[in-house]
Amino acid sequence: MNSLKFTHDTLPQRVVLDTGRVVERVRAEAAQLGIRRPMLISTEGTHEVADSLSAVLSPTEHWRKTVQHVPRAVADEATSAARDSGADGVISIGGGSATGLAKAVALETSLPVIAVPSTYAASEATPVWGITEARTKTTGVDPAVLPAVVVYDADLVATLPQDMAIASGLNAMAHCVDSLWAPKADPINRALSLESARALASALRGLAAGSGQEAREQALYGCYLSGVAFASAGSGLHHKICHVLGGTFNLPHAETHSVVLRYVAALNLPAVPEVAEALAHALGGDDALAELNLLYRDIDAPRSLAELGLPEDGISEAADRVMAAVPANNPTEATHENITALLTAAFRGDDPAHLNDFIEGRTR
Amino acid sequence: MNSLKFTHDTLPQRVVLDTGRVVERVRAEAAQLGIRRPMLISTEGTHEVADSLSAVLSPTEHWRKTVQHVPRAVADEATSAARDSGADGVISIGGGSATGLAKAVALETSLPVIAVPSTYAASEATPVWGITEARTKTTGVDPAVLPAVVVYDADLVATLPQDMAIASGLNAMAHCVDSLWAPKADPINRALSLESARALASALRGLAAGSGQEAREQALYGCYLSGVAFASAGSGLHHKICHVLGGTFNLPHAETHSVVLRYVAALNLPAVPEVAEALAHALGGDDALAELNLLYRDIDAPRSLAELGLPEDGISEAADRVMAAVPANNPTEATHENITALLTAAFRGDDPAHLNDFIEGRTR
Repeated sequence: MNSLKFTHDTLPQRVVLDTGRVVERVRAEAAQLGIRRPMLISTEGTHEVADSLSAVLSPTEHWRKTVQHVPRAVADEATSAARDSGADGVISIGGGSATGLAKAVALETSLPVIAVPSTYAASEATPVWGITEARTKTTGVDPAVLPAVVVYDADLVATLPQDMAIASGLNAMAHCVDSLWAPKADPINRALSLESARALASALRGLAAGSGQEAREQALYGCYLSGVAFASAGSGLHHKICHVLGGTFNLPHAETHSVVLRYVAALNLPAVPEVAEALAHALGGDDALAELNLLYRDIDAPRSLAELGLPEDGISEAADRVMAAVPANNPTEATHENITALLTAAFRGDDPAHLNDFIEGRTR
Repeated sequence: MNSLKFTHDTLPQRVVLDTGRVVERVRAEAAQLGIRRPMLISTEGTHEVADSLSAVLSPTEHWRKTVQHVPRAVADEATSAARDSGADGVISIGGGSATGLAKAVALETSLPVIAVPSTYAASEATPVWGITEARTKTTGVDPAVLPAVVVYDADLVATLPQDMAIASGLNAMAHCVDSLWAPKADPINRALSLESARALASALRGLAAGSGQEAREQALYGCYLSGVAFASAGSGLHHKICHVLGGTFNLPHAETHSVVLRYVAALNLPAVPEVAEALAHALGGDDALAELNLLYRDIDAPRSLAELGLPEDGISEAADRVMAAVPANNPTEATHENITALLTAAFRGDDPAHLNDFIEGRTR
């Protein structure tokens, strides 16, 4: 038994998962919150559901213009529309762009938000907002933007293409695993992370097998908890590496997370044996890395940075940039040497267990 | 994979565990909440810590009169004192009586509460208040009474006698296991319950072995999560049974929970195999009931209702009363026959696995 010392903030939120009943559940939740004059926000894929909601909710405003990364001009327009229409709440139906716009409105107006996600973005589980101006995205944390209620309905994610659903699920897996050793990791967000990993492993196999509603429900649930855990624990080494690869080499977001995850796990798990054991159990086995390998094989996940377009001669620059961003409390001390080895192995798609042998061999 | 449908309310709370640093942590948390004129509440065992806090916090009022079950007169007096002194927050240092009084004051005044527990009561983790008048305890749920911040310091529970600490720990174990099938059980409070069970099993063995600070920290942490899970999931069959045994036969509270837990587990676990497997893993094995049996043996827990003073001819009346209170969603259908068998086995302290054989034999 180790000594325990932690600080954990639990944020208030109500979450509903009820497939096929989105309209009646949102209506009931709006009534419960005392929202009588909602502003609806919907996106291309969700206008139809939003119209069904509109028929029972009589919104003061139905906003249909959402843009990825929430441009400042759109945020300002939507905020004015909320104010001008006298809205007393915001209901977003859509993916990250819709949720993000609702958060931007809440940031200015403090109106309560009901989020109805149609993707696995998990933004609905966090108090993080982001607004883009002059090609720069500003982000911040404000409890006012955390949706008061999230309503999940697995029918809303049924039209997502399978490869996108799997990439999103792996992205969520990366969020929850990285949060195990992130700067503000604590036993409570760890417990939520592990439950998220359990649900996601099952969901991902189900999604890959095309098994329908149950898999989508598990995926929504697992993504939700990965968002809660990640928001609480912060960004660990994995996210810093993906940020460098995305920013410097413009690699695709979710796929980069998929590839990098196993190599960061190989680097860090040996330094936190209790966490490694708990993760292994959550994934259904005794060895966390072996379980991740099995999962990647079962769902045919992307496995190398080379196939995502990283140039081999970019590894050295990437290692330099990663070294400048390593979180102070990363369980294994990051060195230019082991980060280079990690990136090289990820570039090639080597078995992550070999990275571990290499690092152990070098440090012995 | 099963279909998933749930509604979960997460309540806002900040929790700090930092042994040996209670004064500086409470001071910092009060400042963070903007509390400048706190009312301090302390009990017999905590006046000294409260005096140390008083020296750095300059409270407008230091209230030292707490009584078990929060009598109405004491609640009213303390509420008046809070108002008259112009307090802008309440800081309770003590067990259930201190926390309960702070909640009673918050119920009337909506002042923010910082709870500093000195027992394993876990009241600090719930929005439940209770006030006693004319020998009747009225309870209710109000988000205003949930402490905004909980500060745990394992030094404050160091003086609890070992047998009381173990009984409290088992009581918390009963809370978390019963919440696995309680009326509002959902995957999120289940994940917290299982983490609680894991921590408590480890803590209880440590407390029984007298292993000090680490065990007390695990116990505080496990009790905290059991309170969170129980507040969220509600009372299951186990609590209904203990309520009958306590109310009708005046059996001791924590010990009754200790004894009854394994028999309710024997009745319910076979009907929820996934939950049973997850609980077994949390307790460190493959069979939840066998793990509970091992734990009870290791810590020499009370094992029969006879030793707690239940008269054998009371079993029939108890079964009648329990039947009137069985939660609708209990996983195994409760019958007068199996509840009588359960109470008889618990009366004798029989191996709970035999109860299971008996029930399975009868229903086959």
